[in-house]
Amino acid sequence: MAKRTTPRARQAAPAAPTSRSRIVLGQNNYGKSRVRMVKVSRSGKTHTVREFTIDIALQGDFDHIHTRGDNSACLPTDTMKNTVYALGRKRAFDTIEEFAILLCKHFLKGHTPASSATIAIHEIAWKRVHTRRREHPHCFLKGSDERRTCSVYMNRHGLDVSSGIEGLVILKSTDSAFTGYPRDRYTTLPETRDRIFCTSMTATWECGPSAKPRTDYGVLRDQVRELLIQTFAIHRSESVQHTLYAMGEAVLKSCKQVRTIRLSMPNKHCLLVNLKPFGMINNNEIFVPTDEPHGLIEATIQRE
Amino acid sequence: MAKRTTPRARQAAPAAPTSRSRIVLGQNNYGKSRVRMVKVSRSGKTHTVREFTIDIALQGDFDHIHTRGDNSACLPTDTMKNTVYALGRKRAFDTIEEFAILLCKHFLKGHTPASSATIAIHEIAWKRVHTRRREHPHCFLKGSDERRTCSVYMNRHGLDVSSGIEGLVILKSTDSAFTGYPRDRYTTLPETRDRIFCTSMTATWECGPSAKPRTDYGVLRDQVRELLIQTFAIHRSESVQHTLYAMGEAVLKSCKQVRTIRLSMPNKHCLLVNLKPFGMINNNEIFVPTDEPHGLIEATIQRE
Amino acid sequence: MAKRTTPRARQAAPAAPTSRSRIVLGQNNYGKSRVRMVKVSRSGKTHTVREFTIDIALQGDFDHIHTRGDNSACLPTDTMKNTVYALGRKRAFDTIEEFAILLCKHFLKGHTPASSATIAIHEIAWKRVHTRRREHPHCFLKGSDERRTCSVYMNRHGLDVSSGIEGLVILKSTDSAFTGYPRDRYTTLPETRDRIFCTSMTATWECGPSAKPRTDYGVLRDQVRELLIQTFAIHRSESVQHTLYAMGEAVLKSCKQVRTIRLSMPNKHCLLVNLKPFGMINNNEIFVPTDEPHGLIEATIQRE
Amino acid sequence: MAKRTTPRARQAAPAAPTSRSRIVLGQNNYGKSRVRMVKVSRSGKTHTVREFTIDIALQGDFDHIHTRGDNSACLPTDTMKNTVYALGRKRAFDTIEEFAILLCKHFLKGHTPASSATIAIHEIAWKRVHTRRREHPHCFLKGSDERRTCSVYMNRHGLDVSSGIEGLVILKSTDSAFTGYPRDRYTTLPETRDRIFCTSMTATWECGPSAKPRTDYGVLRDQVRELLIQTFAIHRSESVQHTLYAMGEAVLKSCKQVRTIRLSMPNKHCLLVNLKPFGMINNNEIFVPTDEPHGLIEATIQRE
Repeated sequence: MAKRTTPRARQAAPAAPTSRSRIVLGQNNYGKSRVRMVKVSRSGKTHTVREFTIDIALQGDFDHIHTRGDNSACLPTDTMKNTVYALGRKRAFDTIEEFAILLCKHFLKGHTPASSATIAIHEIAWKRVHTRRREHPHCFLKGSDERRTCSVYMNRHGLDVSSGIEGLVILKSTDSAFTGYPRDRYTTLPETRDRIFCTSMTATWECGPSAKPRTDYGVLRDQVRELLIQTFAIHRSESVQHTLYAMGEAVLKSCKQVRTIRLSMPNKHCLLVNLKPFGMINNNEIFVPTDEPHGLIEATIQRE
Repeated sequence: MAKRTTPRARQAAPAAPTSRSRIVLGQNNYGKSRVRMVKVSRSGKTHTVREFTIDIALQGDFDHIHTRGDNSACLPTDTMKNTVYALGRKRAFDTIEEFAILLCKHFLKGHTPASSATIAIHEIAWKRVHTRRREHPHCFLKGSDERRTCSVYMNRHGLDVSSGIEGLVILKSTDSAFTGYPRDRYTTLPETRDRIFCTSMTATWECGPSAKPRTDYGVLRDQVRELLIQTFAIHRSESVQHTLYAMGEAVLKSCKQVRTIRLSMPNKHCLLVNLKPFGMINNNEIFVPTDEPHGLIEATIQRE
Repeated sequence: MAKRTTPRARQAAPAAPTSRSRIVLGQNNYGKSRVRMVKVSRSGKTHTVREFTIDIALQGDFDHIHTRGDNSACLPTDTMKNTVYALGRKRAFDTIEEFAILLCKHFLKGHTPASSATIAIHEIAWKRVHTRRREHPHCFLKGSDERRTCSVYMNRHGLDVSSGIEGLVILKSTDSAFTGYPRDRYTTLPETRDRIFCTSMTATWECGPSAKPRTDYGVLRDQVRELLIQTFAIHRSESVQHTLYAMGEAVLKSCKQVRTIRLSMPNKHCLLVNLKPFGMINNNEIFVPTDEPHGLIEATIQRE
Repeated sequence: MAKRTTPRARQAAPAAPTSRSRIVLGQNNYGKSRVRMVKVSRSGKTHTVREFTIDIALQGDFDHIHTRGDNSACLPTDTMKNTVYALGRKRAFDTIEEFAILLCKHFLKGHTPASSATIAIHEIAWKRVHTRRREHPHCFLKGSDERRTCSVYMNRHGLDVSSGIEGLVILKSTDSAFTGYPRDRYTTLPETRDRIFCTSMTATWECGPSAKPRTDYGVLRDQVRELLIQTFAIHRSESVQHTLYAMGEAVLKSCKQVRTIRLSMPNKHCLLVNLKPFGMINNNEIFVPTDEPHGLIEATIQRE
């Protein structure tokens, strides 16, 4: 399996410098981001429309580009963009994971100085329009901001694939409590056994090397998505953390090939409006949704 | 019927000034914008969640506020915000138009210096989650960025109501052409009989005073929306204008109470990628969606 | 002077329809929006960089485009975009108003079916970098989000020019009060003689036909901007309206060629944090800046 | 020094699961994000206004919150927000790094279950207004989108501080080339010895433990910023990478206490418009600035 260095994370701290220490290039990566592509496929008169955004990053022996201005190892990011369109045309793929793997392979095969490639893709949904209760062959409505995501890291020894969902905004109007927390001199929040729980979920999961050689990433994403939504809906929540864990656990219990899942759940607060000054009781009916500040709860659920 | 002065439009040009001309206050309005409210309604264990954003503007005899710093006629915008929540709690309403009318009436009744009020509301959709093929009583997914909109203008003589839809993003992957246009020295666009047509539609319609006393704004919005989508889907488009007109005409033909409809349709260009340099034919398969620049086509379709 | 029809405003309401009323095309306009252009000018080794965004809209005899799909009168919006770049290269201009006038003239001269053109331009500032206390000849930093704006409407009889500023965010931390306002059952706002006043100002002004044949729009914009900022700074504010009026009045008093100015000033609330629960006094020191809801105060100040 | 676990990074991959593997909680963190604060300080009649946005994340023994719904170790994120305001009022600080350290210490001291805290702060600039060539005591204009940033990680053994700048948008209109790169079948980019180079720079640097006990973070930030801008301006660029390296090297050469700096420089392409179809030469004068796709060049420069 690939030894992974997250391309955009900070480098581990080097040893303490001496006054004579030489200045050198550390971790580096470059590529093209936000390459957008719409692909129209035809099966008879019936069209399918898919929309992708692709980020490409290469790592490798790029020292002389930086230190000497020597571009002989610098595949232009413009060429990377062209490659997306050319391979998008030439190659068939069902899932964004497959297309990301295709692109990784292409760049590592074609560009010797690159030691690894990271391709991140997200896809938004276009939903087929129905006319007279029949599916229309070529008209589509854009769905929500929810996105299918993946990130594939490949080097000359192997690859890592992570899949995900972003921007799934979900709300439950009851079965959510927050009580029993510690209080200090700056605590003013009242305890509640009934509040709105609203989040814009980001989920990312990985299948281990023991997974089947060819996981069906699309089928798995649909399963994971359904499990996350169902668990969110039926859970009796004592906190965001409590529900987040139940959601991750439900995925790991049902999807044997998933080794680890990370959930990031901002608490998009809906504040109960104080109507007492107007002589009214607000029985969990009128809320102000707010964007900031927001809680941010994140955890990885994994197999031991 | 109300004599309307669009609150945020520029004042008609006054007569040419003389060197002795006095400086005076012209058209003015003030209020609270982006008041957000989530309302949870309960029918037994089944909840309904709706989310609104409200803009309030008053016009009236506000000269001394401006010229003397005298606030005795200046209902605070903070009070306007509180009023939204209090009336949101106290009053039942099905459509945003009803709530906007309620608010207009309240401000004109309660605040003598105001001569007119304009309330604009938009609503986003929360879709009920299904668990085990049943509707879940209190869990919801946020839908697309499409918004239901309305704007109600009321003065002491009457009111105007306009209803609308914003941000309905729709795409057809064929049955769209653009040919036969005039060419000048700066024209480079090739003619095409087949292109992608994608827009983010804004529609606004008004029913005349001859409409039934109580139009069902919600039922009408659903009808108009369906007609716009259906016509977009099946139209053989020679231009954005051509399809826009057909859409407006379809609404006026079927919805007798609609007197005028305005459509604003940005042409969200999907550019055909040139794959010839790579020895490939791009048979309307690979496109780059772009945000800018964009065409902008706008027209009112009305009864003569 | 031109008889103006604001291109994107709603059409005046037609007479009440009869059941036999014919469906017709009303007000309409089309064009290209968000055409972005960077123009680099050279004077010896010294470069100047300017960045513009241009919106183009034409009105005219475009009925057959809509009703028959006949594009013989439909100058493509792609050609409009090309025209911006060609004229941007060919013609010299100092102000956005001049460039907008150039574009209007071009479209009306070259395209017979057009009866009027509206060109709106905004420009952002690039500030020259200084190295060793000298101006660098070709390196620039992007400034704030403040934009220079203009809108030129031209028909076959004349033209209207309005100039403006958008997104000038300004704050005063004292000399702002709000007291003496009416109270009703929904009022909870406490009166204050000292609060933060923060706004993102939009100003738009017009010079009348009695103005000099060639107003220097750039010099005037600098004067107006300075007067608005100075007046905001030194005014003892009793309300946003009170200061807004003083600002407009200051412009009209000093700039004789300005006939009318419209100011739009959202009240970007900075809320005083309640520190009493923590045993602290908050003497106008700690605030929460908020984006929504916000007050919105708008008025035209004009010569009688 | 602290052993750091980046709070929002993905957990290292665990050993391959067996079918009997237990499901457990992995890396997790929670807190409040986007806590906004404006602080007004007074020195006589002269005010200073600063605006901060704070993100707080705690890590620690939070298993039972997740697995049992037991909140006895769950300091509410609402309390974290209150703490920002209380400490903002009570404590004096010059730099965002100092305030972040104060907050870390507070949370680790006051909340036993927390093993580490990460506080990220960014600050935007408010620039004092001048009236009649004098500094105005309490009126300010908002500057550009450039932000001062820091991130402090503290555990029970020590702390790491990183400082930075985000959103510094800088452009040079010449002295930038891109030639000598490898070509493959998908390369269409022409070589150029003269192009616009525009980027929105993000820089992050760290001082090592051998730095003076109290680095003046503010003075250092000003030095680093100046070095980055100066080097960008005067460098004869063969590529983004080439200039990026020179910029990092300049910082390390002049600022002895900086141990490592990471630069992220999107290549915000300004495309040369093809004016040949109109019979014109575009001598690097007319460009289209674009937002997407964009190059993304990132590297760490460090002492060996």
